[in-house]
Amino acid sequence: MQISELAERSGFPVATIKYYIRDGMLPRGEAKSATRAEYGEEHLSRLRLIAALADVRELPLARVREILSLIDNPGDSPIDILGRAVGALPPYAPEADDYPRARAAIETLGYTYDPRFAAVAQLESAIGAVQDAGLDWDDEIARRYGAAMTAVATAEVAPVRTMPVDKAIAYAVLGTALFEPVMLALRRLAHQHLLMSGAATPPPP
Amino acid sequence: MQISELAERSGFPVATIKYYIRDGMLPRGEAKSATRAEYGEEHLSRLRLIAALADVRELPLARVREILSLIDNPGDSPIDILGRAVGALPPYAPEADDYPRARAAIETLGYTYDPRFAAVAQLESAIGAVQDAGLDWDDEIARRYGAAMTAVATAEVAPVRTMPVDKAIAYAVLGTALFEPVMLALRRLAHQHLLMSGAATPPPP
Repeated sequence: MQISELAERSGFPVATIKYYIRDGMLPRGEAKSATRAEYGEEHLSRLRLIAALADVRELPLARVREILSLIDNPGDSPIDILGRAVGALPPYAPEADDYPRARAAIETLGYTYDPRFAAVAQLESAIGAVQDAGLDWDDEIARRYGAAMTAVATAEVAPVRTMPVDKAIAYAVLGTALFEPVMLALRRLAHQHLLMSGAATPPPP
Repeated sequence: MQISELAERSGFPVATIKYYIRDGMLPRGEAKSATRAEYGEEHLSRLRLIAALADVRELPLARVREILSLIDNPGDSPIDILGRAVGALPPYAPEADDYPRARAAIETLGYTYDPRFAAVAQLESAIGAVQDAGLDWDDEIARRYGAAMTAVATAEVAPVRTMPVDKAIAYAVLGTALFEPVMLALRRLAHQHLLMSGAATPPPP
């Protein structure tokens, strides 16, 4: 397809598409003449991915670029890549020498972890905010959220084992970024459901 | 305490504290003379809450103000308040006439819901982003996230039943806003744990 059709199908203006190409976020089309290039479905997919990260995740362009480059250059191990992807996603928590509240929670849950992983600082800030707001935080509450997240993560990680490395990395990076809003929307809907239906009893096992 | 001590303990500059008072986000201190007012622990708590919403949730000031006013004026039912709080939190999804993907997922989960609730539009955008990125989305995946979120929400909603209405509303609004980052950080840590430990088997029940 020509760039005009790509613009129409993706919803991005032609000028923006040209900017993404110059910037390296989108591959060039196949040159058909000095002034015309041909674009394919892979260009459309890439633009949809940019829109998903920029609009739904509301990521600034620099972070979108960082995430795309992780997917495009999967040179390192999935763990390193996942660490960098998580650092590129909000909340952007301040680095510190120690993260005592996060450490205590992670130890309660028995997770293996690298203390430099961005999610450790993110958890420290998040627990701090809960406590600053006067909400309860204790081991039992940590275990409640930990159990739900271990269950989700176990199902999410399982397919990674059978994927080739580059596919596994794209899946891990995009899955981290794009299933978060799904989860949060469902939690909000579950609250409404429970309040509307008056149910306070636990769901069947 | 005097405003200088409040500034020191909260980390906010005096000028910012004065701005929040003029704006109505923070109550006035008790006047001790024409130029001096006395502030208490409730002022410090309110400033810590503003910091939690603005820094950890990275909410713009207008959204922080909206959330504070929901807590301060709990005139409506908890469901209405929760609906408005959810609308004040990201992602800010576009309104539409219909949300077919969200509707299908919610029906799969059997949730009671109000189609105008902001989380319905948020779920629609979130599922769209997952699919645009080329990730799988189906009923089984919806049920996986739904089961985890129903479990979390059930534990979260339980204490609301025994709280007075104003406390229940503060808990619901702040809990929605401030436990989200906790959950996301724990999911990211669970991924790292599973990848580092090489465990692909489900956790013990």
